[in-house]
Amino acid sequence: MKENVLLQKNERIDQLYSQNIKIIQSPEVFSFSLDAVLLADFAQVKKSPKLKIMDLCAGNGAVGLFVSQKTNAKIAQIELQPKLADMGKRSILLNHLQDRMQMTTLDLADTFSKFAKDDFDYVLCNPPYFKDQAMSKKNPNPYLAIARHEIKTTLDQVLQVASGLLKMNGKLFLVHRPDRFLDIMDALRANRLSPKRVRLVYPRVNQEANMILIEAIKDGRDGGMRFLDPLYTYTGNSYSDKVKAILYGDK
Amino acid sequence: MKENVLLQKNERIDQLYSQNIKIIQSPEVFSFSLDAVLLADFAQVKKSPKLKIMDLCAGNGAVGLFVSQKTNAKIAQIELQPKLADMGKRSILLNHLQDRMQMTTLDLADTFSKFAKDDFDYVLCNPPYFKDQAMSKKNPNPYLAIARHEIKTTLDQVLQVASGLLKMNGKLFLVHRPDRFLDIMDALRANRLSPKRVRLVYPRVNQEANMILIEAIKDGRDGGMRFLDPLYTYTGNSYSDKVKAILYGDK
Repeated sequence: MKENVLLQKNERIDQLYSQNIKIIQSPEVFSFSLDAVLLADFAQVKKSPKLKIMDLCAGNGAVGLFVSQKTNAKIAQIELQPKLADMGKRSILLNHLQDRMQMTTLDLADTFSKFAKDDFDYVLCNPPYFKDQAMSKKNPNPYLAIARHEIKTTLDQVLQVASGLLKMNGKLFLVHRPDRFLDIMDALRANRLSPKRVRLVYPRVNQEANMILIEAIKDGRDGGMRFLDPLYTYTGNSYSDKVKAILYGDK
Repeated sequence: MKENVLLQKNERIDQLYSQNIKIIQSPEVFSFSLDAVLLADFAQVKKSPKLKIMDLCAGNGAVGLFVSQKTNAKIAQIELQPKLADMGKRSILLNHLQDRMQMTTLDLADTFSKFAKDDFDYVLCNPPYFKDQAMSKKNPNPYLAIARHEIKTTLDQVLQVASGLLKMNGKLFLVHRPDRFLDIMDALRANRLSPKRVRLVYPRVNQEANMILIEAIKDGRDGGMRFLDPLYTYTGNSYSDKVKAILYGDK
């Protein structure tokens, strides 16, 4: 498949150099962020081709595409916005992953019209972070506004769907913002998901965390939360060594 | 007051060199730990002599003694075990702080027989960390067993008393273990305390957190939790620069 054939106006192909994955993006519509890269890195998934992974709120498919390089599992993706889902579908073809990856354009609320309950081993999710408050400043770009604000879904709905999709003892990997931490803990537990591992991401030394990675287990025992070693995004004005290794590989 | 006069058998006087404070301890009964030092460092208290601070589960009084150097506030301390409280009382004399510090030997359950409700600006607490489970391994030293395990009190009782003591918008500063994090969050909120600032303490780079410092506000708005820059206890086999500065002062 020729790469150009897959591109539409104002789109480009970006590559994550630590993995052999190409991703179609559009600066005007949606580009994946470091959050997606760190979520894919955080997710501990086994390799078996019998396993099933769901990437919820998939955007242009970045998280699922990155994770595909760590496993032979089947990967389903759900994205509400057709323009974003369409980029994801073409990235799957571009990377010759159509035998084990599928992007579905679907409202999260309709998930169980197309997917079975209690069927997935892992769910990955990089959901909208910000509450949809009347006064909140939203991105004037409607694609980004929907991707970033809880306009079309809420944290509780996302976690309800994630929990419904997971098998018992299946794992959710979530990226979110620290200031929503208590909301997240409450919504997880209200949906039978026990938070287990947390990694905080700090922009730099001596600054407050601005991102949080969470692993939760469906129907897991309560208690025993672990805070993994933290991650710093930058050292001075460059990416930190750890983030460089995630982005560009250990070289 | 001569120092020797204040010492009983097997006791010694330790000094925190970053502050001009001497503390009576006994290796056989109770010695303060790094947790107390880091809690006192974490607590942001104003200087006014009109303010009132309570140090709950005070042990030999280390937290209140350290904090006395950052403020002119009055400091009350409550400790259940007479032997520990007695060391604290003598340390107050040793440091000539009797005009604004007072240690009371008291069961937490009887707090409001001696102290008024809604009267304190700050509460500091380094409580027992471990659940009192039938199978849990406890220290054979009964003083340490009571200080470390929830034998005589529980997290919920400690936080209920802390909340009762605090004025509206008063602040609680707590040190605890990360694996109890969800219990702590739930018990705080069940007692009108909103967690606001969290600092994780990691033994070393690339290890999981083993201590957590929490600031909560009585009747504060929910949401907006902040994770401050983390603290590492050790660099290699020595204390990290930050912990050295807290222990020995910036030299």
